[in-house]
Amino acid sequence: MSEKEKVILVTNDDGMFAPGLHALVKAMKGLGRIYIVSPDSPQSGKGHGITLRDPIRFNRVYTFDGVEAYECSGTPVDCVKWATKVLLKDQVIDLCVSGINHGANASINIIYSGTMSAAMEAAMEGIHSVGFSLLDFSFEADFSAAEAVARQISEYMLTLEERPLRPLLLNVNIPAVPQEQLKGIKVCRQANARWVEDFQEGVDPRGMKYYWMAGELINLDEGSDTDIYALDHGYVSVVPCQFDLTDYNALDKLKKSMDVQ
Amino acid sequence: MSEKEKVILVTNDDGMFAPGLHALVKAMKGLGRIYIVSPDSPQSGKGHGITLRDPIRFNRVYTFDGVEAYECSGTPVDCVKWATKVLLKDQVIDLCVSGINHGANASINIIYSGTMSAAMEAAMEGIHSVGFSLLDFSFEADFSAAEAVARQISEYMLTLEERPLRPLLLNVNIPAVPQEQLKGIKVCRQANARWVEDFQEGVDPRGMKYYWMAGELINLDEGSDTDIYALDHGYVSVVPCQFDLTDYNALDKLKKSMDVQ
Repeated sequence: MSEKEKVILVTNDDGMFAPGLHALVKAMKGLGRIYIVSPDSPQSGKGHGITLRDPIRFNRVYTFDGVEAYECSGTPVDCVKWATKVLLKDQVIDLCVSGINHGANASINIIYSGTMSAAMEAAMEGIHSVGFSLLDFSFEADFSAAEAVARQISEYMLTLEERPLRPLLLNVNIPAVPQEQLKGIKVCRQANARWVEDFQEGVDPRGMKYYWMAGELINLDEGSDTDIYALDHGYVSVVPCQFDLTDYNALDKLKKSMDVQ
Repeated sequence: MSEKEKVILVTNDDGMFAPGLHALVKAMKGLGRIYIVSPDSPQSGKGHGITLRDPIRFNRVYTFDGVEAYECSGTPVDCVKWATKVLLKDQVIDLCVSGINHGANASINIIYSGTMSAAMEAAMEGIHSVGFSLLDFSFEADFSAAEAVARQISEYMLTLEERPLRPLLLNVNIPAVPQEQLKGIKVCRQANARWVEDFQEGVDPRGMKYYWMAGELINLDEGSDTDIYALDHGYVSVVPCQFDLTDYNALDKLKKSMDVQ
């Protein structure tokens, strides 16, 4: 009795050469037929951006042993749109995994993150999806614990209903510690945190002023049920996400002040 | 008895020369002290992208009669970050308005839209914010009805609490009809709709294949309380928005399947 082979789409926002992508592909080996569509250059912070005013290139690349892979000149979301609408348009994609991102995507970072935006785009297409991020920006980061987490969570995702009406979309962040020091997995909500930017001013070699964005994420949330709290306490954080941005709490009050019918 | 003059930040995603921006500035005249920080080129579909790997330029421009205006080499969200953290860092901004976008931003477009992402970024900074969009992509669009709506809604926004704990963030879309044909304002929720892309294949002058993204928004929502429904029936749609993407409905079930503590 042969079961249909699962189809897994892998993408990221750090680009095709990022070690985190290779770690994620390694973690998926044996779980199904893997396809990679990934940006040809780093796309951190591109959010849910798409390429509308320019053509987009997709080229087959052969640097992933035995895995069908394509580089994309556009954004992470472009990758997912093309993968679902062109490359795999006649196939059911069972799972989309994005990452493993070099650096945290907890809390409000989900809004800025190309990694999570790619996963979200796949979820919009009805595909169970996960964005994985390791709390280490370095290219020399140790991805072994993150790989094991990605494997475990992806195995769980592949047990879920096929072609769901409402796919599961997870934002998974992994502390940068050896695997044996991970305390476990915590399902949590997005912490209320925000970036406080420091724009560094400089002058370029031609004498023109520029700004370069830096900043720090400030946690404004005292809850112990948030992703930042879980990460601070050594747990892998898992936040289930959705993309209806309606503020339902404000709806009724606003109707009273504003509706003119 | 003199009241403190209100401070209004104006931005958009179609760029500094877009007629919709000029219409919005005109609509704000007399409501307070206006500052414009807007991209130097069209940034449609840039979502919540920010510029991290490159310096960003901001230059004073003098094309808006009597209004302090700056062009930005980055994204709409860059504009708002710089405006709040550098240009107006010592001032309370009472309102941020973004637009008037050339084309609809109803439903799921909020995720892709630079216009709405700029407004959302300002709301993250605690500023009451509105993104305005006219359902007409043309540069020759008639903005007179949209201007009147922007004026009316902005006047309402300026009556709200100063420095609120939870600012009001609105996604406002305006049908492309003469003002007297507008049926009124409807407060509604984000419709469940999605883009079905058609990637048009082509070959460039150098013989290389490219794809160009096109597509159509498909409404999957039968509700009569959605923004798409309101617009289809001649109303201005107003959706209050927020940026906690946690799927609270999935939280408990997922905890049962996944928490390992």
